[in-house]
Amino acid sequence: MENIVTLTTDFGLTDAYVGAMRGAALTINPNARLIDITHEVPRHDIVAGAFLFSAAWPYFPAGTVHVVVVDPGVGTSRRALAARGGGHFYVGPDNGVLTPVWERAGEDLHIVRIDNPVYMRSQVSHTFHGRDVFAPVAAYLSMGMPLSKLGPEIHDPIRVDWPQPERRPGTVIGEVIYVDHFGNLITNVTERDVPDRTAAILCRDRLISHISRAYADEPHGEALALFGSAGFLEISINGGNAANVLNLNRGDQVMIRVRQG
Amino acid sequence: MENIVTLTTDFGLTDAYVGAMRGAALTINPNARLIDITHEVPRHDIVAGAFLFSAAWPYFPAGTVHVVVVDPGVGTSRRALAARGGGHFYVGPDNGVLTPVWERAGEDLHIVRIDNPVYMRSQVSHTFHGRDVFAPVAAYLSMGMPLSKLGPEIHDPIRVDWPQPERRPGTVIGEVIYVDHFGNLITNVTERDVPDRTAAILCRDRLISHISRAYADEPHGEALALFGSAGFLEISINGGNAANVLNLNRGDQVMIRVRQG
Amino acid sequence: MENIVTLTTDFGLTDAYVGAMRGAALTINPNARLIDITHEVPRHDIVAGAFLFSAAWPYFPAGTVHVVVVDPGVGTSRRALAARGGGHFYVGPDNGVLTPVWERAGEDLHIVRIDNPVYMRSQVSHTFHGRDVFAPVAAYLSMGMPLSKLGPEIHDPIRVDWPQPERRPGTVIGEVIYVDHFGNLITNVTERDVPDRTAAILCRDRLISHISRAYADEPHGEALALFGSAGFLEISINGGNAANVLNLNRGDQVMIRVRQG
Repeated sequence: MENIVTLTTDFGLTDAYVGAMRGAALTINPNARLIDITHEVPRHDIVAGAFLFSAAWPYFPAGTVHVVVVDPGVGTSRRALAARGGGHFYVGPDNGVLTPVWERAGEDLHIVRIDNPVYMRSQVSHTFHGRDVFAPVAAYLSMGMPLSKLGPEIHDPIRVDWPQPERRPGTVIGEVIYVDHFGNLITNVTERDVPDRTAAILCRDRLISHISRAYADEPHGEALALFGSAGFLEISINGGNAANVLNLNRGDQVMIRVRQG
Repeated sequence: MENIVTLTTDFGLTDAYVGAMRGAALTINPNARLIDITHEVPRHDIVAGAFLFSAAWPYFPAGTVHVVVVDPGVGTSRRALAARGGGHFYVGPDNGVLTPVWERAGEDLHIVRIDNPVYMRSQVSHTFHGRDVFAPVAAYLSMGMPLSKLGPEIHDPIRVDWPQPERRPGTVIGEVIYVDHFGNLITNVTERDVPDRTAAILCRDRLISHISRAYADEPHGEALALFGSAGFLEISINGGNAANVLNLNRGDQVMIRVRQG
Repeated sequence: MENIVTLTTDFGLTDAYVGAMRGAALTINPNARLIDITHEVPRHDIVAGAFLFSAAWPYFPAGTVHVVVVDPGVGTSRRALAARGGGHFYVGPDNGVLTPVWERAGEDLHIVRIDNPVYMRSQVSHTFHGRDVFAPVAAYLSMGMPLSKLGPEIHDPIRVDWPQPERRPGTVIGEVIYVDHFGNLITNVTERDVPDRTAAILCRDRLISHISRAYADEPHGEALALFGSAGFLEISINGGNAANVLNLNRGDQVMIRVRQG
């Protein structure tokens, strides 16, 4: 047990909400080591939260407890969940934000519904379960408390649909699923979909003739495509902001012409 | 002593100021565990700093040392203070930003003026006491150093006036004191002011017929009122940004019609 | 060894990149204590990264490992470096972002090129060496691993040119090198350039008659000059945003009339 607890939320860093969550966790486990993944998930955006969490979680050591709170339904009858799988622990609302865990954690996945008030703050608000439920539960898990103490096992966690690329003979039609801080357009197309680096990519009216390896492999200001650090095809501009220059955004299509094998 | 030191400032996260403060604290107590409340207090806004600090501080464990730096008068004759009360420690400028501590820390409150240079950096700038005075002092306190070493006791810390709601028969007139990241309008009206959930709330020309429990209790896009996580009446829109939609901001009035008991 | 690892990047805090770096470091050294200097270096801005790092690094205790990643050339043939000097350790790309270290770390500076894959992640991407090379290497160094394990010593790290003030008889012509969160205009002019506080400063058409000590020494709303917390002459407005009010930005000139000694 290394006491590592990660936090992923849409609370932003301007208010004191994240501070209050941190305090609530440390009150239970003063040795918890709180590590931020991000607090800038777009507000109430469950799919973006799932994407961002999935881009960082696999890099943490076994035993880490991950708290993911994007929770528009806080205070309603939506369930609160805790899970174990692939050597990590997970805590968050049952609204699909933990879908990457349900997909990838593997055969040893075990999920419980959190309903034991002993492991929550004594007064649970209807507006802030990050502070009153999820942070305390994560702190207890980081101290080695067994999952079974929290509530009954469940097998039907909510999943969100991840947009899948459309695969046709010779063509893959992908979709921009996230635009990062640098303006890179991250699509849902993976290396398995595009086995050949000579593939041509058409995004809006711009044709990219091949797949590069590094941003700086192309001339400054040039549009390029590469497989980014999360394994997805990414449209980028060396030294520039692809989202602005190409006027593309989340949900927009990207067409890849692949050689027929 | 758990070595927990919280930081609340208006320094923002783009510059290296917070980094330098963290380094200055760790140079004195390498085991200090630095936890951010927020660094995005609006610049020089002492009342907002006091509000944000007060929304997180009570959730930390006893023994925590809290540093609060919103300090437009840095380098002038304004005093630097350290205090103990309610089981926590507090460090910051004497300009009212610690008012919530003076109000709530209770009978065991003990305040000193920091004037012993032994516990400051050897060269104290006139522009950055966060790094040169407050972080070092907090680091020493987190190691168990007694408050009395810092300087003489004082009894007259500066307080800022907190806007109070106006209570009339059948009506409470409150004020928006903070707008959060989600656009929720947090007022100065508490549950004690509004004993009945059937109260009607008038904000600008919008009438809200009752007080809800959770954001998602009302239809998507609907304006609603509830008691938020810091105990204050909050005007919100389920899934939306109330500040933008209702065109309300800090300082604006909200009128609550309460049943006469 | 106190296990302190600082992070300075241009990754921003909205994406999960910093989270993934943190995870990669903790996977190697679960006891690493990760401290942010800033992640908001303007994108690909090596000079600003060097400036921000240099404003915080000297305040950390001996033994700290500093990771600085502003890396537009990631995945190309640019070298990855690790260094020791002045009691600290440094890790980053060989593009000049570590210039302040090369200038100031002193005679015991020792630099190696990182090329031993044993200390990198097993799969090194072409787009994210922060996660795959620099964070892992820093984690190993924070555990006491000798620098020599990483690769061969080098003596020709890349340096960026720092803009130097122009010194003429009676006049120093400086340049704004950074604009901070408060709108303060930080120049490259140091106290050695301006020995006398009666110096007059001309910035655009505004004349500042002398050098102040603290922001609040001048009336509210007044333009002023002082030596800021990093030792540089800074143009500021008490309670205001000098960059906006004076319409000055990075690269703009500031003229100082000094008394001829």
